[in-house]
Amino acid sequence: MIDGVILTRLAIIEGDGGRVMHGLKITDPGFNGFNEAYFSEIGPMKIKAWKRHKKMTLNLIVPIGEIRFVLFDDRLPKENSFQEINLSLKHYYRLTIPPMVWLGFQGRSKASSVLLNVADLQHDPEEVDRKDVSEIQFDWSI
Amino acid sequence: MIDGVILTRLAIIEGDGGRVMHGLKITDPGFNGFNEAYFSEIGPMKIKAWKRHKKMTLNLIVPIGEIRFVLFDDRLPKENSFQEINLSLKHYYRLTIPPMVWLGFQGRSKASSVLLNVADLQHDPEEVDRKDVSEIQFDWSI
Repeated sequence: MIDGVILTRLAIIEGDGGRVMHGLKITDPGFNGFNEAYFSEIGPMKIKAWKRHKKMTLNLIVPIGEIRFVLFDDRLPKENSFQEINLSLKHYYRLTIPPMVWLGFQGRSKASSVLLNVADLQHDPEEVDRKDVSEIQFDWSI
Repeated sequence: MIDGVILTRLAIIEGDGGRVMHGLKITDPGFNGFNEAYFSEIGPMKIKAWKRHKKMTLNLIVPIGEIRFVLFDDRLPKENSFQEINLSLKHYYRLTIPPMVWLGFQGRSKASSVLLNVADLQHDPEEVDRKDVSEIQFDWSI
């Protein structure tokens, strides 16, 4: 695990009419303050990469579809620098990502997938580093 | 509008790979504190009704499918006591519901729909009043 990355199992409660799926409580591991909640959609096999937040801690939850998250920590030796996590309702966890870790993600469902980010900061382009998908070598085709 | 109910238009930002959909910022109208974010799923034409929170302010967003929300305020004269709002990505708003308003909702999509509630209190059964769907007369079949 990259330092500061937390994977927290979340409850899914069956009920008449449909399930209730936990997200984030302020007493949960990884909670670091609240400023904004927003969704990001990703099409089948599409990739959004790479982005690194300088200050924001991300708390990511996938209530629809399946998303492959690839984390890259360029402060670590090459062999330990990548971490890959797939999230979906079948593997229902919250993924906490601390600042200064590169993140890319890919839709792995036949339809669009959706993530929720419960963030401790509001969106601020000044706070984000970006690289083109080709600038960090990773085989997304597998 | 029932007193304290707020409907706030939310931005959807088109992007490569998929859209970004706004949810809630702490500077937004209707924000009343953060304690928990959770999802509730509702099957096609299924109904979850009725529930009234005594203390919680709800902030509801529908990133998948379409949900019909029916609000009922039993403190008002009968003719003004119901309010109906459909939310989906095609009608993308955040619905803020103050305490003491009865809420029921119904899935209006061919597949399951999902709401996110960004709540100012954590789930607490003591804080919730419940009635059976038949106890408040409303024609859900229309």
